[in-house]
Amino acid sequence: MHGSQQRDVDICEVGPRDGLQLVGELVPTETKLRWIEALAATGLPEIDAASFVPATSMPQFADAADIVTGARNLAAPWRVGALAPNLRGAERALEAGAEMLFCIVSASHSHSLANTRRNREDQVRIVGDIVRLARQEKGRRVLVSGGIPTSFGCSIEGRVSEADVCRVAADLAENGVDEIGLADTVGYGDPALVSARIKAVRRAVGKDVSLRLHFHNTMGLGLANILAGLEAGVTVFDAASGGLGGCPFAPGASGNVATEDLVFMLEQMGMRTGIDIDKLNAATDILAKALPNERMHSHVREAGVPKVYGRAA
Amino acid sequence: MHGSQQRDVDICEVGPRDGLQLVGELVPTETKLRWIEALAATGLPEIDAASFVPATSMPQFADAADIVTGARNLAAPWRVGALAPNLRGAERALEAGAEMLFCIVSASHSHSLANTRRNREDQVRIVGDIVRLARQEKGRRVLVSGGIPTSFGCSIEGRVSEADVCRVAADLAENGVDEIGLADTVGYGDPALVSARIKAVRRAVGKDVSLRLHFHNTMGLGLANILAGLEAGVTVFDAASGGLGGCPFAPGASGNVATEDLVFMLEQMGMRTGIDIDKLNAATDILAKALPNERMHSHVREAGVPKVYGRAA
Repeated sequence: MHGSQQRDVDICEVGPRDGLQLVGELVPTETKLRWIEALAATGLPEIDAASFVPATSMPQFADAADIVTGARNLAAPWRVGALAPNLRGAERALEAGAEMLFCIVSASHSHSLANTRRNREDQVRIVGDIVRLARQEKGRRVLVSGGIPTSFGCSIEGRVSEADVCRVAADLAENGVDEIGLADTVGYGDPALVSARIKAVRRAVGKDVSLRLHFHNTMGLGLANILAGLEAGVTVFDAASGGLGGCPFAPGASGNVATEDLVFMLEQMGMRTGIDIDKLNAATDILAKALPNERMHSHVREAGVPKVYGRAA
Repeated sequence: MHGSQQRDVDICEVGPRDGLQLVGELVPTETKLRWIEALAATGLPEIDAASFVPATSMPQFADAADIVTGARNLAAPWRVGALAPNLRGAERALEAGAEMLFCIVSASHSHSLANTRRNREDQVRIVGDIVRLARQEKGRRVLVSGGIPTSFGCSIEGRVSEADVCRVAADLAENGVDEIGLADTVGYGDPALVSARIKAVRRAVGKDVSLRLHFHNTMGLGLANILAGLEAGVTVFDAASGGLGGCPFAPGASGNVATEDLVFMLEQMGMRTGIDIDKLNAATDILAKALPNERMHSHVREAGVPKVYGRAA
């Protein structure tokens, strides 16, 4: 990832994309950019800034191009990424200056249809097209992340087989993505399953595959699952400030793992994230003020940063 | 622990004691017993049913004797324990029929004074007296648990040294307690610290010491800390239904690890708890109805039990 500071773990802030995805209230572009500017100041190495879905399907992201361009204009030493659900979205994201494209192919067939209105095979082909498009960028290397939603279960299908996850992972790797992301879209993963899936994907794709993990805290297991990921040697994790990000099948349930809580856990364990937790809380304040009706799910935010924080310092 | 079913992990339900400790509203004795009866039906192997503090200091536990006697009268194959903060409390708990006495000596000097108005040395002597008292019970073996609050940090002192925790653990072991409990009273523990403290206590007391872990979820790390405990070979954990149990220094913050969430994690990992999660949710409903103003902190309760539950079955 970007940034000059030594880090043991790279946290990608997905609040502006995954966090806002299900928020009904539109956040003004200016507020989003103020929030992102505050996030940039925390030392975060990467941000998933917007989703290039058609504005008609998600009005929250009608300003995706302005957000990505605005984020790129900040002087922070981080990488600005965006979700590109299809080739048109990837074109727009690249035009806006995105340095990383997040693409997705669900492990669950039903989820793929519900989420992208395409089956997995067609969606894999689209990711292949996006990789080729990204490789044509002149003078810069744009990374493509191949994320696999429902890697640990699906609210429609229930269990998702290891074979399905591995097949999608292998297909993505064959199509040249720079990394594979295992995403727990609905929060069903548990530490044993996380360990097993990581092993299986490494067997299927090659042990040197770059892995990213993305957990929702729906069942409260987000940090335990990240711990299992760390123990398996993964060092790239998604998280959303304030634990933002709902779950369509469970209204009121927790969203993404809260960035604040993840930073707290890692730093307490003596692992460097490069992120200033007080600045992170301040950044979330901006969003909380803009979304007074949205419930935040960050434990650190509710309890405050205790004075034992920074043991490893 | 008690119970006939094969279990990999023993969960002690501490809701009726630790969970209610900071609840201002008094729960009627009859409601508590209905709740405990519902808890008994879930398959829980152990319950911390009440605190034998003077009723003047905690009116919530004025009915401690009735609760313990009532819980003993249930036919469930579980062990009924109670907190005995001093010798008088232990006498009353034994008289009521308690099968296990939870005693405490804080690792933090300041917390010991604030919590028991005694320094650690005096409190250790009291635990010794309680052990002798328990050994005099005719025809039954009453277990004495020596718990160490602030084992992973203290809201007054901040960090708590490994040496302090180990000294208290060794003192408790010398005084004949049946097990040592490491308690994260304020939720500051992290998985690395949990592993290190367990190792240190085993070095100080002997590697075969029976250990119990008690985590609060104040910073959201409860389940990750339990995972670290499991990996270190500990199999006895406290938890409170509905994640009840506040934190005096952080109003609104999460309380104990929620029993529902812990059962979910363990069973999903293929570890048997012997506990029926649906019956557990039903038991918490009784308490939630009795305490409409109390916020529950169980993710499973909010999100519902997903259909992937019971993979190991």
